[in-house]
Amino acid sequence: MNEKSRKLRSALSSNNIIKVAGAHDGLSAKLAEKNGFDAIWASGLGISAVQTVPDASILTMTEFLGAAIIMNESCDLPIIADCDSGYGNIHNVSHMVKKYEAAGIAGLCIEDKVYPKINSFDDRTQTLVSIEEFSAKIRAAKLAQKSENFVIIARVEALIAGLGQEEAYIRASAYADAGADAILIHSKKQTPDEIIEFAQKWDIDLPLIIVPTKYPNISLEMIEKIGVQVVIYANQALRAMYKSIDDTFASIIRHNSTLQIENKIGTVKDIFELQGVPEMKQLEEKIYKPIIKIQ
Amino acid sequence: MNEKSRKLRSALSSNNIIKVAGAHDGLSAKLAEKNGFDAIWASGLGISAVQTVPDASILTMTEFLGAAIIMNESCDLPIIADCDSGYGNIHNVSHMVKKYEAAGIAGLCIEDKVYPKINSFDDRTQTLVSIEEFSAKIRAAKLAQKSENFVIIARVEALIAGLGQEEAYIRASAYADAGADAILIHSKKQTPDEIIEFAQKWDIDLPLIIVPTKYPNISLEMIEKIGVQVVIYANQALRAMYKSIDDTFASIIRHNSTLQIENKIGTVKDIFELQGVPEMKQLEEKIYKPIIKIQ
Amino acid sequence: MNEKSRKLRSALSSNNIIKVAGAHDGLSAKLAEKNGFDAIWASGLGISAVQTVPDASILTMTEFLGAAIIMNESCDLPIIADCDSGYGNIHNVSHMVKKYEAAGIAGLCIEDKVYPKINSFDDRTQTLVSIEEFSAKIRAAKLAQKSENFVIIARVEALIAGLGQEEAYIRASAYADAGADAILIHSKKQTPDEIIEFAQKWDIDLPLIIVPTKYPNISLEMIEKIGVQVVIYANQALRAMYKSIDDTFASIIRHNSTLQIENKIGTVKDIFELQGVPEMKQLEEKIYKPIIKIQ
Amino acid sequence: MNEKSRKLRSALSSNNIIKVAGAHDGLSAKLAEKNGFDAIWASGLGISAVQTVPDASILTMTEFLGAAIIMNESCDLPIIADCDSGYGNIHNVSHMVKKYEAAGIAGLCIEDKVYPKINSFDDRTQTLVSIEEFSAKIRAAKLAQKSENFVIIARVEALIAGLGQEEAYIRASAYADAGADAILIHSKKQTPDEIIEFAQKWDIDLPLIIVPTKYPNISLEMIEKIGVQVVIYANQALRAMYKSIDDTFASIIRHNSTLQIENKIGTVKDIFELQGVPEMKQLEEKIYKPIIKIQ
Repeated sequence: MNEKSRKLRSALSSNNIIKVAGAHDGLSAKLAEKNGFDAIWASGLGISAVQTVPDASILTMTEFLGAAIIMNESCDLPIIADCDSGYGNIHNVSHMVKKYEAAGIAGLCIEDKVYPKINSFDDRTQTLVSIEEFSAKIRAAKLAQKSENFVIIARVEALIAGLGQEEAYIRASAYADAGADAILIHSKKQTPDEIIEFAQKWDIDLPLIIVPTKYPNISLEMIEKIGVQVVIYANQALRAMYKSIDDTFASIIRHNSTLQIENKIGTVKDIFELQGVPEMKQLEEKIYKPIIKIQ
Repeated sequence: MNEKSRKLRSALSSNNIIKVAGAHDGLSAKLAEKNGFDAIWASGLGISAVQTVPDASILTMTEFLGAAIIMNESCDLPIIADCDSGYGNIHNVSHMVKKYEAAGIAGLCIEDKVYPKINSFDDRTQTLVSIEEFSAKIRAAKLAQKSENFVIIARVEALIAGLGQEEAYIRASAYADAGADAILIHSKKQTPDEIIEFAQKWDIDLPLIIVPTKYPNISLEMIEKIGVQVVIYANQALRAMYKSIDDTFASIIRHNSTLQIENKIGTVKDIFELQGVPEMKQLEEKIYKPIIKIQ
Repeated sequence: MNEKSRKLRSALSSNNIIKVAGAHDGLSAKLAEKNGFDAIWASGLGISAVQTVPDASILTMTEFLGAAIIMNESCDLPIIADCDSGYGNIHNVSHMVKKYEAAGIAGLCIEDKVYPKINSFDDRTQTLVSIEEFSAKIRAAKLAQKSENFVIIARVEALIAGLGQEEAYIRASAYADAGADAILIHSKKQTPDEIIEFAQKWDIDLPLIIVPTKYPNISLEMIEKIGVQVVIYANQALRAMYKSIDDTFASIIRHNSTLQIENKIGTVKDIFELQGVPEMKQLEEKIYKPIIKIQ
Repeated sequence: MNEKSRKLRSALSSNNIIKVAGAHDGLSAKLAEKNGFDAIWASGLGISAVQTVPDASILTMTEFLGAAIIMNESCDLPIIADCDSGYGNIHNVSHMVKKYEAAGIAGLCIEDKVYPKINSFDDRTQTLVSIEEFSAKIRAAKLAQKSENFVIIARVEALIAGLGQEEAYIRASAYADAGADAILIHSKKQTPDEIIEFAQKWDIDLPLIIVPTKYPNISLEMIEKIGVQVVIYANQALRAMYKSIDDTFASIIRHNSTLQIENKIGTVKDIFELQGVPEMKQLEEKIYKPIIKIQ
């Protein structure tokens, strides 16, 4: 468990760009590992969506943590838990860090919105807490962790809230002072300009993280050039799943048959392998062979 | 809640074929409703797969029930819970029925395999419990339900276990005698012959249910002709999800970009609608408008 | 399930004083039933205490609901869930009511404190939300319930917060207007004066509920005289449990033996009966007797 | 976390008798620590009893693990989880060990009964699995653990099942061979004779554990003399809690008042201290003082 925090921290202090896949369950986490991602983002949007509730602090910390634990058990990648605004005040943050770390999660991210939050791409007004209050939460988080390696990420929502570059910088540096291990700077602009400007101004020795959902046209070269170290592909798996299930169900209903989609979807064998059925058979051999030999 | 049991029971006693979609989370359940299915199969394979563990009684009843509750909250369709072999003996079955009914699940299905079970498509030996023992479980289930409408389905695994048509018939009729509300007859043959033979011989006034995963070439006409009343499309959503997420992740890693898949996957707007964000805004209007008016 | 809401509502509209026991788990709920209480208060303090965390919105709604469900399964009494300040805003309240009602809880109580809250007997400053905001929560709660019988109680913390009788009355009547089914008026004074004054001034046709933890010297006659209809003995079971376990452990450590306490504690037989072992044996007889007869 | 396994293992290899308190929730675990016990037995009977279900594999592994985690968070003592017969076959055992170890539980105990089990003091027939099958489970458990320190205890139910000393010895040595870290030898005799005989014959270098519920008259001197290293006081806290809550509720109902019991039960202050309210205030000071200074 601590091993995963150590791995995440060491990746953060390397020179390589870390590619993180947003996941919403064990299956998506394991497929991220299979395809070569470096870490998992236990996405609040994704975990909410597979329960069909808004990404608006409707699910509880218990439910988010439960989903993160399932991801953690499903693959060997470190899990970064999207912990929204920290589920309350400094006491909730402190309790949260203890629970997540004890459960073997590698790190977590909190954002400077109020509780309850709404999704950053929601068009309603975004309200942030004061710099002092969020800095207090960061300090409470850092005080609560047991191992040095556990990672606390501060997510700055100033650009999302339309407060401008200066506010974003002031907040990010305050959170760095409060002890954050990395800064996630978020933007909902259709172009990467805002992110590029922020990153180019960023002069503090703390890794930057971005989530290019709304500005997918940013190139890896640009990401490297502006010194961003972590890229989170937060919700593409979720959106792919939505489309494929919707299409599959539509086809079955239209044709009263699955023949039309059999070749477009995974096989039962794919699923069995994902579930570890082969390993299950190997364990049976390993455990029972000695007995059979004796007999 | 009871409303959903009533709905399921009334569908079972109608003359229409009931189309049931296998789901593994709230998202898949809600998309099944959107596309016109009549009920949800809370699939043991699916729920296990999204946690990447074998469909072999590895997850607990608590975890399966939790997943079924999420599906139930996500849509207005009745949920039929796949309850494997009933998680133990008659006491476990009795406890299970009380918990599922109290949680608003419309009905459940237990199969005549031993506990722990393995998936019906697993190539290892399938072991069944005695007819007497499984009949006792059916009786315990029927005794435990509070409302007359709650539905108990008996799943016959004799064909899966290679025990032949006669054993399948004997078991199915014994379970009917014990009080089962419907019989699920399962087959892993690549053709529907086995199912057709069973259905044509079936002379008891109890609905038949099939799961044509391995014999997708059975036509709706044939299903109607042989008098099968419920068709469960148990795992196509799961397999579609597997393929689409795998492809999406592969593309992101290959291209270091999401540009190549943006048009092939759902939109953030699709997800927001699935989550009920529009309804959330409507509620705000409804609740706060009177106050604003007064001011 | 609805049956329990109906029972609670009918008790509220009777002329009898309703005695409610605070419980923290299934055992305490079942002993409350055994001793003749009318309903269960699923106490936030109690549920937090058996997990050794402060009664300060540290546990999540998921954990409180889970505890309430266990109580509900453990006895035939209606459960009134102590839902603190409603776990957030109107959307959290709406989601909460749907979940609690679907789980068969008879009713719930929310209080006009901020989230996160602190316990009413905590000596730190108590902060309330505005009357408008709490009225909006009451309206959201009433809109969310499906059955007419589900009970929503509004808890007024004005006296606890030191805001005086007038503020308490204004708040209570606003909450009545917003649709609350009963008013819980709380006080931490060592005498019942404050409660008596409030109750005597109360002129709205809505039941009053009190929790005489700090003023145990109020007599049943007085309670009847001032027209209070529900008395919650909220934490005595918890405190009794604390003392008896502490004493028992101390004795075992002191004497390296349990001989000194064997006669002061319950027996294994008491526990077996509480757990329903006799009913388990009866079920075995009922289920298996017909088979044995045949053999 | 691993720290607790290390602590437990080191205690097992010391010469001191280890006193273990049976607990059923966080409160009882924390009071065990306060009173000087060395470790916690997360009792299957206790956890079932506070949910008022029989100790007969009715609760699931998820529920037992959830309760053990709460105990683990509530105190600094190592938790030994009572895992009944291992919840199924070798795959269930393997999955279980991974989950318990990942959750920071120090060790666990499985017994050689069938699944579903019944409590050892239940007067119905006790059925054991074969020596080969239980040895396979022990091997699967040992293979599944990640850290060397995690402790696997094998509980021998041969005396409980009336199979005699020889069978008990044969089983215990087979489980030692299979890799168990300690042997729990259980008896339901009213005198310690059976245990004394077993312990005196025990010639394998593996710690012995006893649970003197039915033979409380065994002295610490005798325990030391026969070389037993761990004593579990498994259910006294539970039974104390039962009696005190029952008496408290009876008194409230009889007197329509709590005055008669106020001095016999714990105080609200006791509860607040158990919950860590003072530490909560200290954290507020620690976190907010620097800010206040600046201002």
